[in-house]
Amino acid sequence: MPAKLNKKSRVVAVISGGLDSTVLLYDLVAKCAEVKALSVNYGQRHVKELEHAKSICARLKISHEIADLRGIAHLLAGSSLTSKDIDVPDGHYAEETMKATVVPNRNMILVAVGAAWAIANKFDAVAFAAHAGDHAIYPDCREEFAQALDKAVSLADWHSVAVARPFVSISKADIVRLGVKLGVPFADTWSCYKGGAIHCGTCGTCVERREAFVLAEAKDPTAYLAQPPIPALK
Amino acid sequence: MPAKLNKKSRVVAVISGGLDSTVLLYDLVAKCAEVKALSVNYGQRHVKELEHAKSICARLKISHEIADLRGIAHLLAGSSLTSKDIDVPDGHYAEETMKATVVPNRNMILVAVGAAWAIANKFDAVAFAAHAGDHAIYPDCREEFAQALDKAVSLADWHSVAVARPFVSISKADIVRLGVKLGVPFADTWSCYKGGAIHCGTCGTCVERREAFVLAEAKDPTAYLAQPPIPALK
Repeated sequence: MPAKLNKKSRVVAVISGGLDSTVLLYDLVAKCAEVKALSVNYGQRHVKELEHAKSICARLKISHEIADLRGIAHLLAGSSLTSKDIDVPDGHYAEETMKATVVPNRNMILVAVGAAWAIANKFDAVAFAAHAGDHAIYPDCREEFAQALDKAVSLADWHSVAVARPFVSISKADIVRLGVKLGVPFADTWSCYKGGAIHCGTCGTCVERREAFVLAEAKDPTAYLAQPPIPALK
Repeated sequence: MPAKLNKKSRVVAVISGGLDSTVLLYDLVAKCAEVKALSVNYGQRHVKELEHAKSICARLKISHEIADLRGIAHLLAGSSLTSKDIDVPDGHYAEETMKATVVPNRNMILVAVGAAWAIANKFDAVAFAAHAGDHAIYPDCREEFAQALDKAVSLADWHSVAVARPFVSISKADIVRLGVKLGVPFADTWSCYKGGAIHCGTCGTCVERREAFVLAEAKDPTAYLAQPPIPALK
């Protein structure tokens, strides 16, 4: 049963500083009574996304905390997102090579920590920007996993917290369209997994970001290092 | 469906350095193909339990890692176990005052991190020493919570990991009896929530520890600061 958020809801939003979660944050601030933001440092190489998250929260004047999980990064070895020995693959998400970006059990850890902070604040829900385009290569993006996890969260404390995924049935292009309506400062969001000076334009998340703006017929204000044709749009 | 462990099982044991999880570790080492131990530093005031965990693993010659979650301790405020501003209550666990020892969503965070490490190692299961005496004041010790969480863990990755709670139907006194059979060095385990030089003998976990040895009719080698009568045994 997905959580229904309303004007009385007090919500912890788990945000990365990326496009999806920034639009989520703007949407929640518009719709709910109180919003606090939580970001996670898990030793990701694109740690600069956290600076973007911080700047967006300052702009919205909402409280922002960082859950520093670097103390467990050594346990999550084997992903290109946390290991410097493994390259971030280029290409479209749908490709087999993208499995290198899977961090073991990342979503459960994020939900568990977000829910803990929501419980400590006696808030109603913890919200994530999971969307319809989240990919089958990530086993912890599956609906049956989400259902089991949400049930566990609701039972984790006497003060019951719901898990909200307001974007779960919409596409990334829909998220861009919503962001345009809400006046989201897209140029301040960070998606690229490589974490360079500007977006690379070629890693899975950059390709997906570029594709979403094209499909939404919206202006993409992002500076990219390269913009090769997007396979799915050919 | 509880996980069945056998001679072929490769298991991550989440251990605190306390009595229950040390007996669990000895039991798993006796029964399974391979065991790795994981302890968690979540900013608990009784952090010395981690030294005990390390020493026990060295004795058993098994690999031991610490998940350092101090970077999220500020999000879990409000428990006497993590906050220096709140006293650890004395008395029996069953009492209302013990609610001060609840850390928000602790069990889900522990299971999520343990499962992540089990997935990274391609192990079969992550095991915990939850037992029949775990208390209703801890909402995340409830059976319905455990069931939902276990299902989520099994779906969290293509490599499915089970959550094992081999002691879930036995009492702490039964755990002491098993520990005696397995030759567990009880004097090397640490239970006290206060984390002083020796066990206080009066906090919830000390009272429970003393009680278990009495009920098991086993010699308790622990040095306690005080040993007032145990209410439940009067």
